[in-house]
Amino acid sequence: MQENFNMEELMDLLLTRQFRKLKDILTEMNEVDIATFIEELDSEKTVVVFRMLPKELASDVFACLEVDKQEHIINSITDYELGTIVDDLFVDDAVDMLEELPANVVKRVLKNARPDTRKLINQFLNYPENSAGSIMTAEYVGLKQSMTVEQAFAYIRKNGVDKETIYTCYVMDAKRRLEGVVTVKDLLMNPYEEIIGNIMDTHVIKAFTTEDQEEVADSFQKYDLLSLPVVDHEERLVGIVTVDDVVDVMEQEATEDFEKMAAMLPSEKPYLKTGVFQLAKNRIAWLLILMISSMITGGILAKYEAAFAVIPLLVTFIPMLTDTGGNAGSQSSTMIIRGMAVGEIEPGDLFKVLWKELRVGIIVGAILGFVNYVRLVILYPGKEMLCLTVVLSLMVTVVIAKTIGCVLPIAAKVFHMDPAIMAAPLITTIVDAVSLIIYFQLACSLLGL
Amino acid sequence: MQENFNMEELMDLLLTRQFRKLKDILTEMNEVDIATFIEELDSEKTVVVFRMLPKELASDVFACLEVDKQEHIINSITDYELGTIVDDLFVDDAVDMLEELPANVVKRVLKNARPDTRKLINQFLNYPENSAGSIMTAEYVGLKQSMTVEQAFAYIRKNGVDKETIYTCYVMDAKRRLEGVVTVKDLLMNPYEEIIGNIMDTHVIKAFTTEDQEEVADSFQKYDLLSLPVVDHEERLVGIVTVDDVVDVMEQEATEDFEKMAAMLPSEKPYLKTGVFQLAKNRIAWLLILMISSMITGGILAKYEAAFAVIPLLVTFIPMLTDTGGNAGSQSSTMIIRGMAVGEIEPGDLFKVLWKELRVGIIVGAILGFVNYVRLVILYPGKEMLCLTVVLSLMVTVVIAKTIGCVLPIAAKVFHMDPAIMAAPLITTIVDAVSLIIYFQLACSLLGL
Repeated sequence: MQENFNMEELMDLLLTRQFRKLKDILTEMNEVDIATFIEELDSEKTVVVFRMLPKELASDVFACLEVDKQEHIINSITDYELGTIVDDLFVDDAVDMLEELPANVVKRVLKNARPDTRKLINQFLNYPENSAGSIMTAEYVGLKQSMTVEQAFAYIRKNGVDKETIYTCYVMDAKRRLEGVVTVKDLLMNPYEEIIGNIMDTHVIKAFTTEDQEEVADSFQKYDLLSLPVVDHEERLVGIVTVDDVVDVMEQEATEDFEKMAAMLPSEKPYLKTGVFQLAKNRIAWLLILMISSMITGGILAKYEAAFAVIPLLVTFIPMLTDTGGNAGSQSSTMIIRGMAVGEIEPGDLFKVLWKELRVGIIVGAILGFVNYVRLVILYPGKEMLCLTVVLSLMVTVVIAKTIGCVLPIAAKVFHMDPAIMAAPLITTIVDAVSLIIYFQLACSLLGL
Repeated sequence: MQENFNMEELMDLLLTRQFRKLKDILTEMNEVDIATFIEELDSEKTVVVFRMLPKELASDVFACLEVDKQEHIINSITDYELGTIVDDLFVDDAVDMLEELPANVVKRVLKNARPDTRKLINQFLNYPENSAGSIMTAEYVGLKQSMTVEQAFAYIRKNGVDKETIYTCYVMDAKRRLEGVVTVKDLLMNPYEEIIGNIMDTHVIKAFTTEDQEEVADSFQKYDLLSLPVVDHEERLVGIVTVDDVVDVMEQEATEDFEKMAAMLPSEKPYLKTGVFQLAKNRIAWLLILMISSMITGGILAKYEAAFAVIPLLVTFIPMLTDTGGNAGSQSSTMIIRGMAVGEIEPGDLFKVLWKELRVGIIVGAILGFVNYVRLVILYPGKEMLCLTVVLSLMVTVVIAKTIGCVLPIAAKVFHMDPAIMAAPLITTIVDAVSLIIYFQLACSLLGL
């Protein structure tokens, strides 16, 4: 991707105080790039540059800034300037910002918003986190069945500038109940006299305000949508979700899954912006739980002290056994967790999945066992029974690990828990215990310990 | 999300041969839902239902089907029917399909396409996998600078029906070089007499055909785009990427990362559609590599046989030590790998990351060490040195694991390798070896073995 602006040039203009030229360049730039530039500036210069921007552009750039920059700007501008920005923001951007800001700043922001904006923001702030209501915006084009295409175009021309998307228009009755959807493409392809009621599509794909944002993202992906209407439980249209917000949701959900699967609590902020204590806090809980669980494994080992006191060599195979078991299990659990996250695998597929993993486990276990057997009989000639013990344990461990790895995430889903929590680290801990019991039981019976 | 159709009702109509009524319902349905319905049918009924669909809808539904269904339909319809479908498909959908089909079927498909479609498909098939060229489509609206808004609307009305998106139009010169971009919103907000050249935005965000699809996805996310023009190295417009394809790319890339991070080769198909042997093949390579590496750990253990022959109790702490080290390391590596995947962390951040992980490691290590120490002095009264050995090893292991966990993925990136490969399983194997050396070295010196 080529760079869209020259950071050094902008910095240079700013430092040499060529504000007029800087302003000309900024006015031509994309708001995202201007925000990237402002993120690099110190507090004082931030406000200088921000004030340079034309009013309309200022609120677009403001929406792209990180919360700490937003807070700094809010604290540096007048109530009047603040009011214009807040009223210009899309409601979803304003809500995103207010959820992060300290209470006193939120108070000042709301005080300076127009009453209707304030009311809307307050309503949106009340939707549950990660629901369709919390990611939607209120700026959409609403039409009536009785309008003609020509009237619709006139309406869009008059009201469309401030809407987040104008390309999908929603048709409502007098009580704001959603009746249909019509795209600008439909409007363009039909004659001016045509009535909206005749060309609208009445099979509207929609979401409820309380629905989970992950389901919203799934719908976008399944139906290739650009926007999705959100209705309340009386089917009244309250907002729309646009595809750019869904793209963010998808990334956020994937990141959360990665974090949970590596035994961390999900973090709210990007890594580089998260403090050391917050990171430690997110990580310590699962580390402690897993550490304490793996002490159980130590207890199991202690029971077999007699066995490895007689044949210390037995101990040296422990890392290979437990690691391979853990890896085999985490392969399965990852496939299942991801499959469920993207909606491919349902709990009803349990037996299909189990049967598949069993067969994969047997194939993979057999290959690993064979490689190990060849290596062991060369390294330890004459100790056939020991080799057999290790190889048999390995194969059984792999099959059991794959079984646990596929069953646990599905079980979690059935009990309405997040499957991602049943990931590699937890399964490794369980598989460790199981594989050691199998190993030493086999050792005791095969080697007569 | 509410169901958009009644699968049972459709099945019932099909089985009772009420084809007329079925056809009426299908014609009103969304193409994605029709495809979901067809996926459930056996071979014979698939063709019956597919032939029921009006021509226009048939190719939309066809594009939504899985490749095996597509292949079956291609083999069951006439050359004429095939020709209409192929010419009606968007080029990116046709290319997606042809990349999966067997050679003889591809040949028949291309033979029945119009010459210009065939040429375009062949050109697109040649773009490298996972490049912007491989995910773009050729159906976009191209305008000229000299057109008025009115002429532009007339052009869109005439040519827009078959375009994948009409809302962003690209302005080109006589040599098809990209000059600017104008949205339908811009057109709607300007008077009919306005010249496109005056209202178009000349700062076009674009991609080159050879650029990686991940970078394309990043641009969409950064700039909230609905479509992105793709140019060749002479800046000529060759296609566009639309946001619905980018949503698929994002999901595909995240899934690939999940798979790599769980020590698997990425799979091409969804889990339930992948055969047992393919799954085993994707998993065995890394399992073998990691198994063989963990034998090195066994070798290290063998060196300290004397130590645990004297104090067998030492062995029982091994699972706790290696598991906790592995978990601590995988937490760090996951954060870094994900941070790099979403473009937040760059190799240049190495020292920032390292310093952060060091401090997190010390905090987390101290807490884990403290919990362990309390537990150990209660369980093993009078064995202070043993407790100290275990606790010190644990703390050092956690700090080293976090260091390795953040350095390895960044190093991979620097050497143009995929950071996701440096994930949990590999780091666990390395940390295992390191932690055992530390543990037994400490044991030997502190316990005088």
